Amino acid sequence: MSKQIKVGIIGGTGYTGVELLRLLVQHPDVELSVITSRSESGRPVSDLFPSLRGHCDLAFCEPKSDAFQGCDVVFSATPNGVAMTHARALLDSGTVLIDLAADFRIRDQATWEQWYGMEHACPELLDTAVYGLPELNREQIKTAKLIANPGCYPTASTLGLLPLIESDYLANNNVVIDAKSGVTGAGRGASVANLYSEVTDSFKAYAVAGHRHHPEISQTLAGVGSAPVNLTFVPHLTPMLRGIHATIYADLKNPETELDVVRDWFVTRYDSEPFVDVMPLGAHPDTRSVKSSNTCRIAVHKAGGSGKLVVLAVEDNLTKGAAGQAIQNMNLAFGVDETSGLLHPGLMP
Amino acid sequence: MSKQIKVGIIGGTGYTGVELLRLLVQHPDVELSVITSRSESGRPVSDLFPSLRGHCDLAFCEPKSDAFQGCDVVFSATPNGVAMTHARALLDSGTVLIDLAADFRIRDQATWEQWYGMEHACPELLDTAVYGLPELNREQIKTAKLIANPGCYPTASTLGLLPLIESDYLANNNVVIDAKSGVTGAGRGASVANLYSEVTDSFKAYAVAGHRHHPEISQTLAGVGSAPVNLTFVPHLTPMLRGIHATIYADLKNPETELDVVRDWFVTRYDSEPFVDVMPLGAHPDTRSVKSSNTCRIAVHKAGGSGKLVVLAVEDNLTKGAAGQAIQNMNLAFGVDETSGLLHPGLMP
Amino acid sequence: MSKQIKVGIIGGTGYTGVELLRLLVQHPDVELSVITSRSESGRPVSDLFPSLRGHCDLAFCEPKSDAFQGCDVVFSATPNGVAMTHARALLDSGTVLIDLAADFRIRDQATWEQWYGMEHACPELLDTAVYGLPELNREQIKTAKLIANPGCYPTASTLGLLPLIESDYLANNNVVIDAKSGVTGAGRGASVANLYSEVTDSFKAYAVAGHRHHPEISQTLAGVGSAPVNLTFVPHLTPMLRGIHATIYADLKNPETELDVVRDWFVTRYDSEPFVDVMPLGAHPDTRSVKSSNTCRIAVHKAGGSGKLVVLAVEDNLTKGAAGQAIQNMNLAFGVDETSGLLHPGLMP
Amino acid sequence: MSKQIKVGIIGGTGYTGVELLRLLVQHPDVELSVITSRSESGRPVSDLFPSLRGHCDLAFCEPKSDAFQGCDVVFSATPNGVAMTHARALLDSGTVLIDLAADFRIRDQATWEQWYGMEHACPELLDTAVYGLPELNREQIKTAKLIANPGCYPTASTLGLLPLIESDYLANNNVVIDAKSGVTGAGRGASVANLYSEVTDSFKAYAVAGHRHHPEISQTLAGVGSAPVNLTFVPHLTPMLRGIHATIYADLKNPETELDVVRDWFVTRYDSEPFVDVMPLGAHPDTRSVKSSNTCRIAVHKAGGSGKLVVLAVEDNLTKGAAGQAIQNMNLAFGVDETSGLLHPGLMP
Repeated sequence: MSKQIKVGIIGGTGYTGVELLRLLVQHPDVELSVITSRSESGRPVSDLFPSLRGHCDLAFCEPKSDAFQGCDVVFSATPNGVAMTHARALLDSGTVLIDLAADFRIRDQATWEQWYGMEHACPELLDTAVYGLPELNREQIKTAKLIANPGCYPTASTLGLLPLIESDYLANNNVVIDAKSGVTGAGRGASVANLYSEVTDSFKAYAVAGHRHHPEISQTLAGVGSAPVNLTFVPHLTPMLRGIHATIYADLKNPETELDVVRDWFVTRYDSEPFVDVMPLGAHPDTRSVKSSNTCRIAVHKAGGSGKLVVLAVEDNLTKGAAGQAIQNMNLAFGVDETSGLLHPGLMP
Repeated sequence: MSKQIKVGIIGGTGYTGVELLRLLVQHPDVELSVITSRSESGRPVSDLFPSLRGHCDLAFCEPKSDAFQGCDVVFSATPNGVAMTHARALLDSGTVLIDLAADFRIRDQATWEQWYGMEHACPELLDTAVYGLPELNREQIKTAKLIANPGCYPTASTLGLLPLIESDYLANNNVVIDAKSGVTGAGRGASVANLYSEVTDSFKAYAVAGHRHHPEISQTLAGVGSAPVNLTFVPHLTPMLRGIHATIYADLKNPETELDVVRDWFVTRYDSEPFVDVMPLGAHPDTRSVKSSNTCRIAVHKAGGSGKLVVLAVEDNLTKGAAGQAIQNMNLAFGVDETSGLLHPGLMP
Repeated sequence: MSKQIKVGIIGGTGYTGVELLRLLVQHPDVELSVITSRSESGRPVSDLFPSLRGHCDLAFCEPKSDAFQGCDVVFSATPNGVAMTHARALLDSGTVLIDLAADFRIRDQATWEQWYGMEHACPELLDTAVYGLPELNREQIKTAKLIANPGCYPTASTLGLLPLIESDYLANNNVVIDAKSGVTGAGRGASVANLYSEVTDSFKAYAVAGHRHHPEISQTLAGVGSAPVNLTFVPHLTPMLRGIHATIYADLKNPETELDVVRDWFVTRYDSEPFVDVMPLGAHPDTRSVKSSNTCRIAVHKAGGSGKLVVLAVEDNLTKGAAGQAIQNMNLAFGVDETSGLLHPGLMP
Repeated sequence: MSKQIKVGIIGGTGYTGVELLRLLVQHPDVELSVITSRSESGRPVSDLFPSLRGHCDLAFCEPKSDAFQGCDVVFSATPNGVAMTHARALLDSGTVLIDLAADFRIRDQATWEQWYGMEHACPELLDTAVYGLPELNREQIKTAKLIANPGCYPTASTLGLLPLIESDYLANNNVVIDAKSGVTGAGRGASVANLYSEVTDSFKAYAVAGHRHHPEISQTLAGVGSAPVNLTFVPHLTPMLRGIHATIYADLKNPETELDVVRDWFVTRYDSEPFVDVMPLGAHPDTRSVKSSNTCRIAVHKAGGSGKLVVLAVEDNLTKGAAGQAIQNMNLAFGVDETSGLLHPGLMP
């Protein structure tokens, strides 16, 4: 066995944190060294998350400056605005930083500051960060020192659109993404809005007038296509734990294109991708089919009546949409098998 | 008190049936006379539905030809294809028939037979049936003898579009309806697909290539607008009991129209409607806000970035989307207060 | 119509508050006058609870000392410890106070202070408060000025035991109550523990070593039986919105007693009770059968093998377990029909 | 790597079937050879269960007599009554049979036939079957050819009682097990009773008068203790996918025994058990803490007031309660590491 990758985690008390822990304690190439949390400092990780009893002996520790000494890589699983305060020191010490929050996702500082409502702590690093979508940026990720792990909505949305935008198949780049998320996407902070009694047995849209993942998706699509995409993005909250379902509406340049041809575009584009699965014609992926797995599952349809192209893309927001993809990025950055620690099938049901 | 309306129900063992029962036993103008069910004949209604213990003393009886003698109105809460076999006899005996299934919703016989996969038993009645959407057809309903109660998706979808289509505000009549339904919409028949363990904690699209409610919505919109609507309709299954959430995407002829003006179109159109509620700007209606109530709640938005118009419309699929609307139609047809028996607020949470 | 009862509510932003509102706006004998909330002062009630749009025009107001002037009755739907600070002033002004929290449920001051962790503000009133379980204290409630509305667990638990304890049918008064509650019972305060993502799709016991409802149940049972009951009470949290299910285990003095005889004890005891329903032999009440209704539904069984007596009692924790029962108490105290405003059947499903 | 164990599965279309598949495709010592299903013959497994796309290339095949030729072990994941029709032939050909249904759980033929309502096909094998609870029968399992995998309720219930019964710590062997199960325990057959719309947002007891798992638990406890146990067992249905929560009530011979002493009994008894976790004092295990894992997690409490001993035991009914335990048994029977393929932590949340 090769040398283990020494891993640190900043902030591991949220759902992306515990998902990182679940995956890392099973990872054959990883030694989990340190995990910090200001609020839970001193508490055994498995006391907060009993599912990890017997699997993780660490306790949370204070996020001091030297906490990550000796780590090869640090995952930041904190709210937005924290990773950027650690980035410079970690990079200076030769540690790779993978941020699961949004601090390095938007390359334009002004856009970032507008959407995230704070001043950026290290704008000079925005250009050096690699957007960690392996299906798009695999080669850059392999040598990256600072990886901006994509948002949950952007991962499913972008993977559902890449083959169409890259090859310029769309008529007008007029795209609607109607996206639905499970409640873990809203995080583990105490709030009335995310109480069981507020969100179960109910469904709603939110942030129709503007959501932070919109500029992130737009930036990526602008980078791969020949023309800017006119994107409408509406997120919804669904009473389930995990899962993103993106329903994507678009018009083909050639509306007569047969659906199996469209499917072939996707199959070809993702042929060698270990974590993108293009379903047979006629299939409707459900989010549970990817629960706990690192797979994004995609199907293409033509809508009855209008013939509009409809792409369905599902993922587990905590896995391919967060912690799993972060580990996929780590695997790439450290030269181990890209799928290492990520090849388990999803939990069903 | 005026004379009570004598009511019969064909098939009352499904979810629209028990919702009819819940509402009718509280209705001040109704005397519930008979309820038929082939499979449960002889069984007390409150044995099948213990929530009705103390509220309903009827037993299910055989659906014989004279079962509804003396009834003023009969609700058919059966699967598609049953009401049409009863219609002629009921109308001949002077009984009003309100069909909660789809037998009389589509005026074109060929279209109906294509979508419902059977021969229509009384095509000559298709033209006499009134489509029971009070917000559109109130006057015709008042004198109707055969009322086709709208589908659940079509009710929310149509109410979310009427003010735009009637006044010809849309640029291209290119409309996308991304609709989400709770599981009761799938009925109470035994099936693997609708088991708790199959649908809970998961989300999926279905019937993207074509759903029966598409021609129904198209027919209605074609009847009110100046031009046909190019409609894309994609339904989704959501892990909740009750509720439809329609997210409607459309382009205004004048994209500069301020959102409060658009909202005013809706407010004006529905000003005197007792069961349509137009929310303030910025609001996102959740389906639970209409749970168990007969209200359709609507909000209008402009999507961030694209500025596309987004209409959100929610209803309880069993109430405004089925049994409540059927009773609203009965109230109209029998000249009692349209809101009679329907004015309770929704259950929260 | 008789004179309307003028009603005030202290603190109406929680789940018992909105349930009170739902029931009171439909109540034919009530005029809802004022509702206070420190945190939401000035905000329209229907803005916080859109389900009440069109049903309630009030706005929350500051809980000033004269806020309830002119009210005949005030419901306190606040956390524990608030009603007792209002009690003296309200009683002095001739207003009836119905406390939905626990301030007046325990007659012994020391016991109360031990379990609720604070000093009681008006211990001299503890003796004058009537425990508002109509099935036990109907006559006292009719003349009460201060009514302690029972807890949710105690209501189902006590109703499931009254016929056995009152008539001294139990062998050893050794009773186990294994109780399960929906999540609304935990209130609407922001907390990590009650997030959707923490409690859905999971089940757990809590407070096994001691729960505040234990002394409340014990006090009531001690008051009706010939001997103290040795009570074991274990509450559990269930991933559902509303509902209490109490599974009660007890041994009969005469273990040979036929089950239909036991059922007859319950039928006889509750014969004239409008809100207690004793099911047929063999039935297993589910909590949804009482969802949104004021009914407590009870079934008796003998466990296979041991022959131990098992009583199943279900209620909606927000209705018969809180707001519905509070209104039942108000009806009694003001001489209107005890069932007024409470006779709707439960929502199914 | 040692020689792979060749595995067959009889009937793999239910929830225990797909859980077996999920675990076996990850198992380092297993080669999955064949899976039969009469109803799905010819269909790719991953078509029925898309979560297995890319993980399982098998198709279901007809359950012909020679289907399992060459298999070292066959798991039967069918309804009760099927495995017994295959047992003789499989054993004769030297194949180990692990039955996840109940055909070989009860040693007494008459008792089995009474509870399962059919004639046993090979009663002569009842005595040779080993009850596959490794914590009790590890040594016999190592050489067993016919393994009766325990029921889901019996696994949690028995593990929660073994240390008390084996050492004769209970006063009267008067034990109450109030057990709660997720809905997957009811299987994947089409039925109205298990529809999402029937069981979500509701809770109920069932089979209070007698459940098949009662004699199974009684048989095991009778085999380990000095005296028969007077067992009351009441199962309940909980609106969640996976999970058993057993709340066990018992009286200690010496009621003064300190709780930490009781806990030590459990710790000592399960000290070397890889899949039983005794929690610290004060902890309340929730079922999600074992979701998808093979662990049974146990906590001991004394109930407030009565001081009665309360044991809480949770497991995933599909893993430790079915497929995981079956694989644990296979590991033992084939001399590979008992934990092989089973050491992943649970999914959280």
